[in-house]
Amino acid sequence: MGTASELQSLDKLVSNALSGQDLQEFNRIHYGRISNHELEIKKNNILFGNENHFEIAAYKFPANKEEIRKPRIVKAGVIQNSIAIPTDQPVTKQRCAIFEKIRKIIETAADEGVNILCLQEAWSMPFAFCTREKQPWCEFAESALDGPSTLFLKELAIKYGMIIISPILERDEVHGDTIWNTAVVINEMGKVIGKHRKNHIPRVGDFNESTYYFEGNTGHPVFETSFGKIAVNICYGRHHPLNWLMFGINGAEIVFNPSATVAGLSEHLWAVEARNAAIANSYFTCAINRVGTEKFPNEFTSGDGKTAHKEFGHFYGSSYITAPDGSRTPGLSRVKDGLLIAELDLNLCRQIKDKWGFGMTQRLDLYVNSLSKAVNHDFEPQVVPRD
Amino acid sequence: MGTASELQSLDKLVSNALSGQDLQEFNRIHYGRISNHELEIKKNNILFGNENHFEIAAYKFPANKEEIRKPRIVKAGVIQNSIAIPTDQPVTKQRCAIFEKIRKIIETAADEGVNILCLQEAWSMPFAFCTREKQPWCEFAESALDGPSTLFLKELAIKYGMIIISPILERDEVHGDTIWNTAVVINEMGKVIGKHRKNHIPRVGDFNESTYYFEGNTGHPVFETSFGKIAVNICYGRHHPLNWLMFGINGAEIVFNPSATVAGLSEHLWAVEARNAAIANSYFTCAINRVGTEKFPNEFTSGDGKTAHKEFGHFYGSSYITAPDGSRTPGLSRVKDGLLIAELDLNLCRQIKDKWGFGMTQRLDLYVNSLSKAVNHDFEPQVVPRD
Repeated sequence: MGTASELQSLDKLVSNALSGQDLQEFNRIHYGRISNHELEIKKNNILFGNENHFEIAAYKFPANKEEIRKPRIVKAGVIQNSIAIPTDQPVTKQRCAIFEKIRKIIETAADEGVNILCLQEAWSMPFAFCTREKQPWCEFAESALDGPSTLFLKELAIKYGMIIISPILERDEVHGDTIWNTAVVINEMGKVIGKHRKNHIPRVGDFNESTYYFEGNTGHPVFETSFGKIAVNICYGRHHPLNWLMFGINGAEIVFNPSATVAGLSEHLWAVEARNAAIANSYFTCAINRVGTEKFPNEFTSGDGKTAHKEFGHFYGSSYITAPDGSRTPGLSRVKDGLLIAELDLNLCRQIKDKWGFGMTQRLDLYVNSLSKAVNHDFEPQVVPRD
Repeated sequence: MGTASELQSLDKLVSNALSGQDLQEFNRIHYGRISNHELEIKKNNILFGNENHFEIAAYKFPANKEEIRKPRIVKAGVIQNSIAIPTDQPVTKQRCAIFEKIRKIIETAADEGVNILCLQEAWSMPFAFCTREKQPWCEFAESALDGPSTLFLKELAIKYGMIIISPILERDEVHGDTIWNTAVVINEMGKVIGKHRKNHIPRVGDFNESTYYFEGNTGHPVFETSFGKIAVNICYGRHHPLNWLMFGINGAEIVFNPSATVAGLSEHLWAVEARNAAIANSYFTCAINRVGTEKFPNEFTSGDGKTAHKEFGHFYGSSYITAPDGSRTPGLSRVKDGLLIAELDLNLCRQIKDKWGFGMTQRLDLYVNSLSKAVNHDFEPQVVPRD
């Protein structure tokens, strides 16, 4: 799928080029820790991954011991993947093919003890919003409560006692068949405990997603689960610090960022934004991006002077996880399906809040006051004029 | 000053380890552009820098041509430096020694055509706030309008037609001799056009700065100048996305971030935060950090279990500049005084706003509503409870 010439991994490229003291310094300054704290992966799973063409990587984020609280160890997992069959195949067939690919990776995640798993944005379909064609793509939209994706994942959630976050194209039949970009949260008993709709919708380059759905109306919910307080910031929401902030204010300990974004548009921003959010809000962030190049049956244009084309660009994967202290894992491959696992001690969130004090020093009242002025039509910016 | 064993530059380490296509891919993904667009520096200045032990680096950030607006080219400069003589010398002597070192670098900046220059946080003194001793350090505090630092820089501002931002320890004699951490803005006619006081004060590790000064009371001023709209986010304010946001809302095109921060505390965050702010707010950011290790006459403690010590840790320099499109310069040295220059086309700010639309998609009214609830004592976070 057009990835033969793509670099496999920037992180590996740099790490392989360095050694000894140099590599240590790179790790310390770049990743925020000298050791990546790699976790061992079971041999049978590595073998299974190789057979099925997906990478597995696992790391650990320890926290200090406390006297009163016990460690709160959680295994978080994220999956990045390409689509499974060409986009001109029937909708149901395309979806089922993705299901079968994902089932194998989820089985592996379960065998590695993952407690909370998040899939990529609109995982059960090609990212067809670039086409601006309504059909057949709107046929992928499905009920959050009992659509095919939810039914498929519910079963696995129960089987493996795993919380699964499923970002889909949602069809809201209760409210006039409207379509939303939605993350469905299924708990380890297979119950849909809630959903979050994408708060910020891009209109950039090929990403004219407002053709299909509006800005979300579900606020910034944090889901209290057996494995910590979790939230979902969908894709383009990662460019908005206020979006990250509200999940933090509502108490999130892990914020997943299921995305679909391509090289040429955002790749140099990718390592910056979700990581900055983890730092600023003292929580874990899990940034997930799909992989591969998706080709569509009909040509579309970008409005950027390029000729009409059928390919959207290369989804560069590179999913990674950042801790509240700003240290991060290397990214998954730029070209290959992958499962990234991190063992988190959630106690680290409050430890870092105590250390850095960003909440205490935040002066939220000042900003509420300033921002409430800024939204007014007669707002006068605080500008010291030129003489 | 204890820097012999320190790595000179992470950026150079990695760039030197790569070549050809690999280096190109690293530059594209890491820096956000394949070429660093280096600007030539005059030979006499390189020689002068070598003689006086400071590095000079200069880069360009071009923008697209527009039909209606002409390019708005501005040369911004930042200076990072160590102190000049030991901290047990008389206050006036210490300050004058720094003046003489800085004068040479400003002369060079002028000869390279710099229009706006920003010095590091509390540039005219050692960063003595770790000691928690009031004297002699409070003697460094000076009037923003006509203290020694302002008088010194006014002269250079006039001589070179340069705007100079001077972050100092301010003594406000009008308001009860209070002390502030303040950036004074001197325009190219030598006039103090205003000042900004540090909005967020750290209480972390050795940084118990609230011993000396309070959170600033000057809001988020943007200074309209002959060379664009500029603002200053002082040091620890870079951890607060709301602080960056308000400067953007008030119209800043370049935000300087004069800092003083040490390895072991923040180095892995350094490349993330000011860069993220440039991306999120579609403006240029200039991150400045001092260099070297400062040794104080008396021991102090950190409250982190370490034994009492006289050294604060290594200020790791690494000053860098980011454009609104998220591309950035390599950092200056981790150990050496330096002058970093970037030729900016300020038109890039609005071009990137038009491209990405972060302002348009920001939903500020939603956040004003949510945050105004969050500041209340009876705030109830939006939490979906566990069954």
